[in-house]
Parts: sequence; structure tokens; C-alpha cells
Amino acid sequence: MSSNAIDELAIDVVGFDADDTLWHNERVFVEAKERFTGLLTPYHAPGWIDERLYATEMRNLHHYGYGIKSFTLSMIETAIELTEGRITGREIHRIIELAKDMLETPVELLEGVEETVAHLADSFRLIVVTKGDLFDQEAKIAKSGLGEYFDHVEIVTMKNPATYAAVTAKVGVTPDRFAMVGDSLRSDVLPVLAVGGHAIHVPYETSWEHEHVSQDEAAQYRFSRADSIKDVPHLLREL
Amino acid sequence: MSSNAIDELAIDVVGFDADDTLWHNERVFVEAKERFTGLLTPYHAPGWIDERLYATEMRNLHHYGYGIKSFTLSMIETAIELTEGRITGREIHRIIELAKDMLETPVELLEGVEETVAHLADSFRLIVVTKGDLFDQEAKIAKSGLGEYFDHVEIVTMKNPATYAAVTAKVGVTPDRFAMVGDSLRSDVLPVLAVGGHAIHVPYETSWEHEHVSQDEAAQYRFSRADSIKDVPHLLREL
Repeated sequence: MSSNAIDELAIDVVGFDADDTLWHNERVFVEAKERFTGLLTPYHAPGWIDERLYATEMRNLHHYGYGIKSFTLSMIETAIELTEGRITGREIHRIIELAKDMLETPVELLEGVEETVAHLADSFRLIVVTKGDLFDQEAKIAKSGLGEYFDHVEIVTMKNPATYAAVTAKVGVTPDRFAMVGDSLRSDVLPVLAVGGHAIHVPYETSWEHEHVSQDEAAQYRFSRADSIKDVPHLLREL
Repeated sequence: MSSNAIDELAIDVVGFDADDTLWHNERVFVEAKERFTGLLTPYHAPGWIDERLYATEMRNLHHYGYGIKSFTLSMIETAIELTEGRITGREIHRIIELAKDMLETPVELLEGVEETVAHLADSFRLIVVTKGDLFDQEAKIAKSGLGEYFDHVEIVTMKNPATYAAVTAKVGVTPDRFAMVGDSLRSDVLPVLAVGGHAIHVPYETSWEHEHVSQDEAAQYRFSRADSIKDVPHLLREL
């Protein structure tokens, strides 16, 4: 990681996470959970509803994977469980409507994303590496209006070192010439470093609560951190 | 499409569809539909249940895409609609159990698949090009035991000419050196021919009912047809 003169870039390809890196996603789920909790408050306390929903989601992860459809099936299952089957078809129909509202939510870019991505596309090959439901993620990329800036979009079921080894090989770059930008230490930073790549962590407004990587553990790794995606071009030139 | 001497192959890369080409899939849905119909027969005639389920699936395709999770959400929605909300939480829970059974169904290869794929892997680069849910399809490929024979697996949301142009470019083959093998005229044959590739149609036991391509229309295109995947090596050598 030597310092470079201007325009002698150390990086050829920049990868972006999508949800909560390019556009808001967490808030769509937060709002849906609030509506779901509202539906079940005649039966239970909000805290207990949240807890049971989370437990159902975790239990179903190996059946369903990530995404809105998986989340919806877990909401329905939780509603049945928490009401001991007393929930009505009409109430479950409101959960399905909620899911369709989630799927139809417009894609809202994070501040600075559009100009930063457009600017970086002049100097680097840009790709997207995102977890989640193929159908949902393709729809969001199309709705985002950012598609033209990306050379390649890779939608994956998990983000581990093998994932990044495969993606960099697929786009024809060695990991040392690849930098990943994302909001998750566990998914966008640590596995990239593990295969010899670079990473820039741009935490999302709520992401620290969800990260299962301690500050102590994170401190052992070498990566950059940015408060905003707008700082990424500058940090890339410092690599 | 000149004839070639033995071992002077006209094809470099062979693409396989997955569901109902490499392994049974349709029957998993047929069985699930039977169980679903059984659940609702206290309320309606089986024919009407089938018809409403199909209508719900079609209406939801642009929301959900393909796959078991999408199908499950459509079953739940249909059950609510057909009972005017009178269906109970317990009954809906049986639909969710049905979905989990579908997801846990072992992958059953079609007859002749394993030896044919193993044999072809000696002479060609093999890839999978399949529609559907990313999470489900990756799980099925892992369970199939065929993963090692495939150089690349592409899971797509639709199969049109642009899809095949992109996939062949991605794996570095020109369409005229690419042949696709699959059970669907509409997804595995016509769009491949449209970009200058080759195709071998291996109809599944029930696939003619579902094809929305008439025999007349199909007769205008140039592709091979095999009764079994076991005939594919021979047909590839004739291209």
C-alpha cells in the first residue's frame, strides 16, 4: 500500500454494497415492523412482538434467505404463533399488503451517492456486490437510475472471503487492485481484507447496533472509514 | 452450421437450464397445489381454486418474481381471497408448513443427467443458466451434487435474448460456439437462437401444456429436439 502520485491509482475496480450504502433500506424494514407491531398490539406488547419476529426470522434464514418475501413469510408465521392461530385471514391480508408496499417503495439514494458514483466512474471500473433477493435487488438497481455507472452487478447469497475471491476473479481484477465500499464491517470489510483486498467502511445511520463485530476486533484490521460516501474518492486516492 | 469431423467440435460452451432439465421441479409444485386445494375444498371446488391461484400468481409476478417463496405468498393471498378472510391462522400455518416442505424436498435428478453431465464435462465447458430465486437455486445446485461439473452458474430473473447475449459475453464465448439445453421453448430455445446460438430442446414430461409457443411457431426455428438428456452428446456433435 504505497502512496501514489495523482492519477497513478492503486485500484482498478471499486465494489459497492447496495442496501444502506447506495440507497436507504433499513428504514423500509423499520417502518414495516412498526406497522406489523401495530397489527398485533391487541394481542401482545410491542417488545415481545419484536423479539418473536426476530427469532422467527433467524430460525427461517436457512429456509428462506434474505429479502422482503422472506421477511413477509416470517411476519405471517410470527402473527400466527403469537395469536395461537386466532389471527384472521383479514389481518394476514394486511401483512401481505404491507409486503407489497415495501416492494413498491421508491428507491431513495443516500446523500451524495449520485454525484460520487458518477465521478468515480470516470476513473475506476465500478461494480455492485449485494446480498439479498435477486428479483428485488435487480428491481432496485433499475429504479435507482445508477445502472449505467456499473460495469457488473453481482447478487450473492452470502458475503464471505470465498465470495470476494470469486467476484474479483470474475471481473478480472486481483484483490490487491480492488476496493469495496459498504456499511457492514462483517459483510463489506472483513471478508474483503481476508482475501487481500481493500475496504472503505461507510457506516449507515443505524448500522452500529446491528454489527456483530466489536470495536476491539475491528481495530485489528486495516481499512478506511468515511462518514459519507462523498469522502470515498479522496480515500481511494490515498490507498 | 457445417458438419464437423469427430473431435472438431463446433461448440465450446454448453448451457443447461436447471428446473425440469437437470432435476424434477414441476412435480414439487403439482404436489403442493394438491395439498393447497385439499385445504380449501371445504370452501370451494378444486377447479376454481386452481384457477384463482394461477390468477394470483400471474398478478403477483411483477411484485415477487418466481420461486417457492413467491408461490407461497400467492397461495396465502388466494386462500384469504377465496374464503373472504374467513380462513384461520391455523389453516394458513399449514400453507407455511407446505412451503417449508417444498424447500426441503430432496433434489431428484432426471434420468441420465448425472452420467451425461459428467461425460460432457470432458469435452465442453458447462454452465447453468436458470431462472428463479437465487437462494433456492443455489441450495438446489449444492444438493444436486453436480456443482463440480459446472464452470459457472448464472441465476437470472428472465431469459430473453439480452440475457443470453450477456451470459455468453460473461463466460467469454461467442453465441455461435454456445449451445443451450433445456425443457422450455420459450426460455431455453427461442431467445438463444435469436442471438445466434444453438439450442437443444429436451421437453419435460408435462412441459407442452405450459408452453405458450405453438407448434407452428416453433417449426419456423432451427433447433434440435431430444427425448432424453442422454441424446444431447450425440446431438452436440452433429451441430
